[in-house]
Amino acid sequence: MEDMKVLGRGAREGAVFLSDASAADKNRALEAISRALLDEQEMILAANAEDIKNAAAKGLSESMIDRLTLDGKRLESIAAAVLKVRDLPDPIGEVLDERRLENGLMLKKVRVPLGVVGIIYESRPNVTVDAAALCVKSGNAAFLRGGSETIGSNMALEKVMRAALASVGFPETCVTLLHDTSHEAAREMMGLREYIDVLIPRGGAGLIRTVVQNASVPVIETGVGNCHVFVDATADLETAAEIILNAKAQRVSVCNAAETLLVHEAIAERFLPMAKKALDTKNVELRCCPRALEILGEGGNVKAACEEDFEKEFLDYILAVKVVKDVDEAIDHIRKYSTHHSEAILTKDEKNAERFCRLIDSAVLYVNASTRFTDGEEFGFGAEIGISTQKIHARGPMALKELCSYKYIMKGDGQIR
Amino acid sequence: MEDMKVLGRGAREGAVFLSDASAADKNRALEAISRALLDEQEMILAANAEDIKNAAAKGLSESMIDRLTLDGKRLESIAAAVLKVRDLPDPIGEVLDERRLENGLMLKKVRVPLGVVGIIYESRPNVTVDAAALCVKSGNAAFLRGGSETIGSNMALEKVMRAALASVGFPETCVTLLHDTSHEAAREMMGLREYIDVLIPRGGAGLIRTVVQNASVPVIETGVGNCHVFVDATADLETAAEIILNAKAQRVSVCNAAETLLVHEAIAERFLPMAKKALDTKNVELRCCPRALEILGEGGNVKAACEEDFEKEFLDYILAVKVVKDVDEAIDHIRKYSTHHSEAILTKDEKNAERFCRLIDSAVLYVNASTRFTDGEEFGFGAEIGISTQKIHARGPMALKELCSYKYIMKGDGQIR
Repeated sequence: MEDMKVLGRGAREGAVFLSDASAADKNRALEAISRALLDEQEMILAANAEDIKNAAAKGLSESMIDRLTLDGKRLESIAAAVLKVRDLPDPIGEVLDERRLENGLMLKKVRVPLGVVGIIYESRPNVTVDAAALCVKSGNAAFLRGGSETIGSNMALEKVMRAALASVGFPETCVTLLHDTSHEAAREMMGLREYIDVLIPRGGAGLIRTVVQNASVPVIETGVGNCHVFVDATADLETAAEIILNAKAQRVSVCNAAETLLVHEAIAERFLPMAKKALDTKNVELRCCPRALEILGEGGNVKAACEEDFEKEFLDYILAVKVVKDVDEAIDHIRKYSTHHSEAILTKDEKNAERFCRLIDSAVLYVNASTRFTDGEEFGFGAEIGISTQKIHARGPMALKELCSYKYIMKGDGQIR
Repeated sequence: MEDMKVLGRGAREGAVFLSDASAADKNRALEAISRALLDEQEMILAANAEDIKNAAAKGLSESMIDRLTLDGKRLESIAAAVLKVRDLPDPIGEVLDERRLENGLMLKKVRVPLGVVGIIYESRPNVTVDAAALCVKSGNAAFLRGGSETIGSNMALEKVMRAALASVGFPETCVTLLHDTSHEAAREMMGLREYIDVLIPRGGAGLIRTVVQNASVPVIETGVGNCHVFVDATADLETAAEIILNAKAQRVSVCNAAETLLVHEAIAERFLPMAKKALDTKNVELRCCPRALEILGEGGNVKAACEEDFEKEFLDYILAVKVVKDVDEAIDHIRKYSTHHSEAILTKDEKNAERFCRLIDSAVLYVNASTRFTDGEEFGFGAEIGISTQKIHARGPMALKELCSYKYIMKGDGQIR
């Protein structure tokens, strides 16, 4: 096994350097990385081709293989994303609070990097570069652990990024990839409290659970979204049908896609056929509660739901459907099944909207809009590292500012207590 | 063992109620608690007397027993502290950001409670009330686990607080104390992810280590302070002697007390005897590096330091002393041994002050002041739940705002992606 402490110490040295690097220097490093990704395209794509060959030999599904694959165009867009991160404002050094205390001490609260950010992710190799770029920009060293299927691609990307960092005078350990993709190594990384300040798992529910259960490094949970759309009695039904189609089916593999449709009983008979018509255009399967089943009629894409269907993040062309008595039943249902990501109410009743937003404990609550907007770019934050579904540190889209901490600086002239 | 899930569900219900309670209602609840503590003084003191009897029978030290003991005066000051919390501004509902996105969506970021806050602490029974009051004020349910030595006192305090909550129409489960003080119960509590949103250990290094290693609930580490004071070549030496005396000995049992004195070699011969003279007034033992030993002469309170002395939080009338070459050696020493709590530089050199504050990664950096100011009240935050020494969520004094999270509310008129 690699000597994890050596890797950790290297990452910490990178973090110390980065914490003191100027915005201009960090931007130069990002430019060097972006350029190197294009210059070294051949080497990177060859490594990726090897990964793909191995994945195919292992019998991975076509859609999985597609997610692993790099080509010239994808690499170009990865390199372009690095430049977009460069163009974001530097979050470091911003004064968040400044005041003089009664005893004359001058208090200043300043934004600083977190230090070493550990990211544990699954297959897609673009995360390797995205995560590294966000870390460098926010003054953090990146300590990365990607999936075993793309270890060759990730090692090539690490090599290219490290050479680029060195070319502008940065320690190459600002970006560290775990080459050992065993579970044992991942677990050792999760316990590296001395060298890693925070762990961010990016991936499915299983990955996140493993990290949460095994890490002693602080974890920020991201990304599992069992998102709900509630269509209230007063909703504009045409708009509601468009929103549920968008929330469910514009892109099914993402965490902000809707997984359950709740419909007020007063409009269920009118609205459910409209919703079905819209969702049929994308061939969405509906898993229905008894009342919805009664209205829509079982058969074709309309099926009976079991309890589990309301718990699941399908990430597929499947939607659970339930008729509810009123906004309170909708709130109770969401409280019970939600993963605290994003929920929407479609209504003209401001009181119900206010109640929904107040009583549901999720990162983002929508009134009359699709859940698909829970995204760093959409929020105007620029690129993001993930969507936090926990309540400490950061909630919702985590972009550069959320990759930071703060420190207090107190200046005095001899104050004692 | 108590059914932990039943306790968890109760606390969650309390949290749901509290998250929607008005500032006025929460204040009424705090008044009821404060009053009840005085009204029920007899019952509380009787329970405490029983704890003390058991502690004495177990042979606990006198200073330990003093920490466990309640009397009329201490209870009065606990009740008064609850009213001070009542008088602080309500942190909940504050709009932290509000803007219209290009697509017309209105984004609002609002401060909300964390939910259920778990607090694991050691012996002093005042923490039971302090923590509960801070939680109620910030809209959080408190899930408390105190030390076994004061379980009788804590149960009495819980009973009184719960009756007070019920008397103003609050669910009594807004405050929940674990009656089972076994390690097994504590461990089960640390894994109660469904019902506890954050765990805050309050106590010594051992307690904090146990919580960090065993919890799957997110933890905020608090309070271990190996704090440093560096006296630079240009420091005003009279002031420096006053500051080190204050930082070390004004109150030795607290986390913001200094544990190591670093002295620039250029002024060591002049300053160390001055520092010793000041510290002698409190009979402080000095554990010295070879150069300091040479200057001060071994004997009496002056002893040779071993490596371990620089790692320790003495919490006693003991100070480690080291002579360093310059500000960079001081920075390196602090980086190596610091627990990231509070560090001070005493200097007239602004460049060195700036370098010290920039390169040391601790919650609070002081220039020409005592480390003893790292405290919620001193910072103007009001009462605090602890001093965070980690970098996620909150750093330094954690008061009401740091006991909160936020949520986003997005209002639209049919936006889809």
